Amino acid sequence: TQISEIYISQAAAKIDVDFDYDGPLMKTEVPGPRSRELMKQLNGIQNAEAVHFFCNYEESRGNYLVDVDGNRMLDLYSQISSIPIGYSHPSLIKLLQQPQNLSTFINRPALGILPPENFAERLKESLLSVAPKGLPQVITMSCGSCSNENAFKAIFMWYRNKERGHNNVTKEELESCMINQPPGCPDYAMLSFMGGFHGRTLGCLATTHSKAIHKLDIPSLDWPIAPFPRLKYPLEDFVKENQQEEARCLEEVEDLIVKYRKKKKIVAGIIVEPIQSEGGDNHASDDFFRKLRDIARKHGCAFLVDEVQTGGGCTGKFWAHEHWGLDDPADVVTFSKKMMTGGFFHKEEFRPNAPYRIFNTWLGDPSKNLMLAEVIKVIKREDLLNNATHAGKALLTGLLDLQARYPHLISRVRGRGTFCSFDTPNDATRNKLITIARNKGVVLGGCGDRSIRFRPTLIFKDHHAHLFLNIFSDILANFK
Amino acid sequence: TQISEIYISQAAAKIDVDFDYDGPLMKTEVPGPRSRELMKQLNGIQNAEAVHFFCNYEESRGNYLVDVDGNRMLDLYSQISSIPIGYSHPSLIKLLQQPQNLSTFINRPALGILPPENFAERLKESLLSVAPKGLPQVITMSCGSCSNENAFKAIFMWYRNKERGHNNVTKEELESCMINQPPGCPDYAMLSFMGGFHGRTLGCLATTHSKAIHKLDIPSLDWPIAPFPRLKYPLEDFVKENQQEEARCLEEVEDLIVKYRKKKKIVAGIIVEPIQSEGGDNHASDDFFRKLRDIARKHGCAFLVDEVQTGGGCTGKFWAHEHWGLDDPADVVTFSKKMMTGGFFHKEEFRPNAPYRIFNTWLGDPSKNLMLAEVIKVIKREDLLNNATHAGKALLTGLLDLQARYPHLISRVRGRGTFCSFDTPNDATRNKLITIARNKGVVLGGCGDRSIRFRPTLIFKDHHAHLFLNIFSDILANFK
Repeated sequence: TQISEIYISQAAAKIDVDFDYDGPLMKTEVPGPRSRELMKQLNGIQNAEAVHFFCNYEESRGNYLVDVDGNRMLDLYSQISSIPIGYSHPSLIKLLQQPQNLSTFINRPALGILPPENFAERLKESLLSVAPKGLPQVITMSCGSCSNENAFKAIFMWYRNKERGHNNVTKEELESCMINQPPGCPDYAMLSFMGGFHGRTLGCLATTHSKAIHKLDIPSLDWPIAPFPRLKYPLEDFVKENQQEEARCLEEVEDLIVKYRKKKKIVAGIIVEPIQSEGGDNHASDDFFRKLRDIARKHGCAFLVDEVQTGGGCTGKFWAHEHWGLDDPADVVTFSKKMMTGGFFHKEEFRPNAPYRIFNTWLGDPSKNLMLAEVIKVIKREDLLNNATHAGKALLTGLLDLQARYPHLISRVRGRGTFCSFDTPNDATRNKLITIARNKGVVLGGCGDRSIRFRPTLIFKDHHAHLFLNIFSDILANFK
Repeated sequence: TQISEIYISQAAAKIDVDFDYDGPLMKTEVPGPRSRELMKQLNGIQNAEAVHFFCNYEESRGNYLVDVDGNRMLDLYSQISSIPIGYSHPSLIKLLQQPQNLSTFINRPALGILPPENFAERLKESLLSVAPKGLPQVITMSCGSCSNENAFKAIFMWYRNKERGHNNVTKEELESCMINQPPGCPDYAMLSFMGGFHGRTLGCLATTHSKAIHKLDIPSLDWPIAPFPRLKYPLEDFVKENQQEEARCLEEVEDLIVKYRKKKKIVAGIIVEPIQSEGGDNHASDDFFRKLRDIARKHGCAFLVDEVQTGGGCTGKFWAHEHWGLDDPADVVTFSKKMMTGGFFHKEEFRPNAPYRIFNTWLGDPSKNLMLAEVIKVIKREDLLNNATHAGKALLTGLLDLQARYPHLISRVRGRGTFCSFDTPNDATRNKLITIARNKGVVLGGCGDRSIRFRPTLIFKDHHAHLFLNIFSDILANFK
């Protein structure tokens, strides 16, 4: 069987090479004339100022995104980290072409009441096959924000049930909740971190603290916000300072829980990203997260890990928090983006105690579960987690080298797997670098106020890293 | 051209007849043995107590839902009102089989930054082709809750900009919003109605007041809640009482706006369903809504009409609020369900004044826009709005007849188009009727505490209405 495995693996690799392009190919500036024309058209219908350019997805393949002006770019941003195995993957095309799958795409059910025959089976072969250890329950949702919103709700219900100690809900609770008042709507809170991003709907937004533009003018909730460690790089030169910084943040977490309880606002849960992504790719040590988990348990708060951007394999493990080596698993883990469907895993004790408590019309989409099952097969067959570790090492090594050569342009190089980033001196330089890179055939994304983040697909290989590094090295050499 | 139109119309009707089944066919009780087995299996993964039965969507066609035990049922609930043109519609199958559409299903973009070439064109041929008059702007979202959440945000931004009177945001606003505090996060509110349902994420949930189970244990916001008219039926016998009831509710709306402003909580908008659906199919007169619209304008509040359940044609107009004959259009109209994609239409003045203010990774899904464009073509080609009026009349007439014959079981028969409903004496009787009907081959849905609601697809015809009425008449005759 070992021989046939090797054979399969090589065949698979061959398919991959076949469907990917062999490099960027630029014909115009980006956005080109056709993109600009379409931007104008779209801007008549909605504010289109965030549009980078328009794409030809039919021609996009593997790691390469093709635009409407015929430019082909190496995509290291992959639709804000949401394309798992590259564009137009042959396995997904095949899936769509199978007549037995048609129904799944056109008959979208209300999953909570009328699921398709294979619903549980498909959850098992997709999401549950990669469930974080200790989290055997899963609920699907349509997007990342809904995943976090509903995870909050599951946590609030769990906390209230724990507080009640029995299953009897009072008449007063049932009546007061209808008019948004306690005790039916208790004064619970989620503790979040400055710099965190957990979505943009009102509940999520109360835990999001990435950029002012995300929050300005939207009413919010008085929920506690702790500082997130601001580590100094290179890490090996600032061991003690960074330990102190992490200890300071953890102390503040405990203080906030106590302080808010004193004013009768109960912290029911703590939400954290393994790597703060939108907020600037801020890392903390595995030790920090283990201690945070301990604090959550000590104070009876649920520990919610938001893996919407970090999950799906790009850090070299399927879930970034698996790097931490937690003794006691997280209580709830949310996902979306590369997972194609939103949702959350949770421990048994967070299971809603009645039907319709965590519910909406669609509860996700079986067509996304179908595609995810195929994506996970490809990840396993092509060993893409190890690939992320390997290609990530090539990328990080190259970035460290560029940092050594261009310290005035690149600093704080950091990353796990291909989930890498670096800082530039300021916002203007960062944006200029992204624009130049795009015109040289590389799509990059920014985050925070002056970082560049790498979010390639899982089929990003060493040779793509080298290709990028060569192009970017030239850019830096000529940067004025 | 008139002759060819008739010809096309007949050809279309023929296709419809061909792909629909000719009646229910029952083999077991529902849920049958296979459904029960699958429920047990799913319940190991998540709370599956809300599941009615498991479905064979491959075999489901037109108005008929087939379950995993081979039972074929006339579906008058259509996945909580979310299947527009029936199961496995030939036009949608054809769409999926066209090779040029494959990419749209497997390469899901981040629409706000990297839209596909045909994005604006597709919005024009789908959503904008049915846009409510006076609302030329549209933004897509993944589901109903996200649609309302983002509509609230657009309203809050609009209100704040109006209040500012200029475009200069202060440093204090930018800093305070990062920690959830005013003035950056102003103390704004949406006014909602008791009995309304607008979704289950935290912002939406603060405006939802349908059932306690939807809200219990979830922290909320102190936002004003007005009474919704409780009309007496038959309407023609209670003209004066109903007018008084509506006047009382409208007066309360104004009082609440004033009262909340006095305590520095500003009502930025009013949200209302044209027919309160989850809350029990509560109707109000067109006059009530016209006056409500006037009150919103008078107090400077945005007027948001939630058409998530009522939209898409089932009332006989594409949008239920088009029946009202508003002089000044609604400001914002949200949709989802039958529209296949979530989103909202709005007036120009509600357009976000900067990029990334209304934003998330996916902003909907082009594969849903593609299917919606086809659905709208079918609706127009097969004249399905008039069909909803016609079939709805057959249904309503029949229900009124049943009400006359079985007044102890059926009361308050009401409806617009096929969006019909009636009350039963109590919860237990309602649920028993639904169960019996299901075992006779008809899927019905409940709403409120004792109502049965009709939410058939748009291809529900007169003969389906008569088929249902015959079956239900027998059920009522034998009901003990």
